[in-house]
Amino acid sequence: MAFSERVTRLKSSLIREILAAAQRPGVMSFAGGLPAESMLPKVTWEQMPVGIGQYGMSEGEPALREALAAEARALGIDCHASQVLVLSGSQQALDLAAKLYLDTGTPVLLEAPTYLAALQNFQLFGADCLALPMQADGPDLAAMRQRLEQQRPAFVYLIPTFQNPSGLRYGQAKRDAVAALLDEFGVTLIEDEPYRELSFDGADATPITGRLRKASWIYTGTASKTLLPGLRVGYLIASPDLFPYLLRLKQAADLHTNRIGQWQLLQWLGSEKHQQHLAGLRDYYRSRRDAFQAALQTHFADLADWQVPEGGLFFWLTLKRPLDTRTLLPAALAVDVAFMPGEAFFPEPDQHLGYLRLNFSHVPPALLEEGLRRLAQVVREAK
Amino acid sequence: MAFSERVTRLKSSLIREILAAAQRPGVMSFAGGLPAESMLPKVTWEQMPVGIGQYGMSEGEPALREALAAEARALGIDCHASQVLVLSGSQQALDLAAKLYLDTGTPVLLEAPTYLAALQNFQLFGADCLALPMQADGPDLAAMRQRLEQQRPAFVYLIPTFQNPSGLRYGQAKRDAVAALLDEFGVTLIEDEPYRELSFDGADATPITGRLRKASWIYTGTASKTLLPGLRVGYLIASPDLFPYLLRLKQAADLHTNRIGQWQLLQWLGSEKHQQHLAGLRDYYRSRRDAFQAALQTHFADLADWQVPEGGLFFWLTLKRPLDTRTLLPAALAVDVAFMPGEAFFPEPDQHLGYLRLNFSHVPPALLEEGLRRLAQVVREAK
Repeated sequence: MAFSERVTRLKSSLIREILAAAQRPGVMSFAGGLPAESMLPKVTWEQMPVGIGQYGMSEGEPALREALAAEARALGIDCHASQVLVLSGSQQALDLAAKLYLDTGTPVLLEAPTYLAALQNFQLFGADCLALPMQADGPDLAAMRQRLEQQRPAFVYLIPTFQNPSGLRYGQAKRDAVAALLDEFGVTLIEDEPYRELSFDGADATPITGRLRKASWIYTGTASKTLLPGLRVGYLIASPDLFPYLLRLKQAADLHTNRIGQWQLLQWLGSEKHQQHLAGLRDYYRSRRDAFQAALQTHFADLADWQVPEGGLFFWLTLKRPLDTRTLLPAALAVDVAFMPGEAFFPEPDQHLGYLRLNFSHVPPALLEEGLRRLAQVVREAK
Repeated sequence: MAFSERVTRLKSSLIREILAAAQRPGVMSFAGGLPAESMLPKVTWEQMPVGIGQYGMSEGEPALREALAAEARALGIDCHASQVLVLSGSQQALDLAAKLYLDTGTPVLLEAPTYLAALQNFQLFGADCLALPMQADGPDLAAMRQRLEQQRPAFVYLIPTFQNPSGLRYGQAKRDAVAALLDEFGVTLIEDEPYRELSFDGADATPITGRLRKASWIYTGTASKTLLPGLRVGYLIASPDLFPYLLRLKQAADLHTNRIGQWQLLQWLGSEKHQQHLAGLRDYYRSRRDAFQAALQTHFADLADWQVPEGGLFFWLTLKRPLDTRTLLPAALAVDVAFMPGEAFFPEPDQHLGYLRLNFSHVPPALLEEGLRRLAQVVREAK
């Protein structure tokens, strides 16, 4: 069988396997990152025009592009609707960026840890994934400068607000400094913000994109965390030099994004009901996070260190004893607990042992204590 | 700006430009291939469960996969639901197949002419696109054997039923012979069937896929031509050796296909109302085709040769004088007529001058005569 060279880098997804195991009845899953089922809003379709069933524009629905550009401008991103490309979920931005920039061996710079699917996508296209070491308020700037200077990455991929997996939020000063570095070296920024709206403590953090003066950029967001993931509607906004290429790559990939989901999203953006829904989501997730923090204190205080996340969906635990957490999975699943080993989120997993990503939104509070108690026992008993 | 090598092969889409020009008020467009707006069915959403808004499986909705597998089995394709991958439109099958098979210089074998977006996608990924010469009932078998023997293509991409652009339908004997050749050389078949259901004269033609005994295969279809393109729901069915790779590539591209469109398609498949809708579509398109044929006879009998298509959406004209039809576009647009030059549908456009693709479903009968009269005049006056 003669497949492409690329396919040799197509990893069997650990996440797929863990999530499949987590579907078993009775399993308490801290592994996934699904929105809470009870918080899915009821949507209506009666007003949708029949014509929405026709083929649409590759760019996306004009009114939706206008609304998304207006939202981005309110965050300080100087942009026009003509720079907005509606996507089949924001994951598609990774595929399009990979196609635009990557040949075998092209260096790119990613936070360590970073979003797993980004890592897998860039590796599939042959990228040399360089690790950007992180501090409590964002990247280690000296390391970032060194990488930019010496290895000239094609782009820097960052998730500055409530990162998956680490929950980290860059401080304002770091955001300014990162933008200045990208401008200095003329390196493209890809800024991924799925969790921006899931902010629990009023933390303020405007995008890095809006702080750039010269560098090219792709800013991407999604309706999946704040409305309905099943719609599969995300978007990117790009600097004008990149947009025409991304548009043609989108057209080649799937012609255009489904229009029914686009129409539904447009009914919500900027509306009072959307604000109410988001406020409800934040309250719900905040209370889940607080309950999780309390249970973690009880069961993991002697086993791990962590920061309380100000937003997003995950706790990121650093074990005091740096076990390879991948080896803990069978024992955890044997007691009906699923979690995500942290190693997979690093370009070089074997050099980053001893991290756990725990979703706090899925397991009901009544089962939380028992789930974390069992998981702590697995960690404690590991050799 | 350091883009990937791939991007140097990203063509500015002639189709995009023509379709944009065709949007101008007053333009009679024979260029596109949109379903007729008046034939878009009214769909309802009241019964859709709220849970459909949640993330779904990369494979697609289980019930939809079952229904699609049952349809394929009825066409003679021996398959199981586990081989069905629901896609964000069948165009996505081209992207996934390109990722699975293509490195720079990989030879692939395509009908000449072939579907423009397939040609562009495979070229984007660096394929060496070999032309398969066509006869009235399908490929030239001697040429096909020679290409398979001497150039060992990674796959053969075929649209055997009412092809876009040529309207051609392979005969039964050719289908058998093509399958036997693919088995003999062990070359993967990609069989693309968007137009199968748009059959006007009861022509029978079961897929080539069902005739294979050994070769690997990807069979792909769509809801875009028979229900609503705006849903962006297509599918592929693959031989078991290919499926796991295609699934992971789908997951990397966009996680999964939008579930609202999948749910809607499932409401129609196998239903009485779907059969009625398809019968109505066939009647509508048949009468449009017949009117087009009559008008062509009036205006083009001395200028071109063509076959009356038994299905699909297009007439394919071979000019008696082999003009480069791309040069006719400005004059046609100047008199408010759009059409698709045939050269673009060949891997080597400059070696295939003098073809026009004309969509027969869009221009209303009342304007048809005038549109074709003007187009004929443009051809007649061309130097």
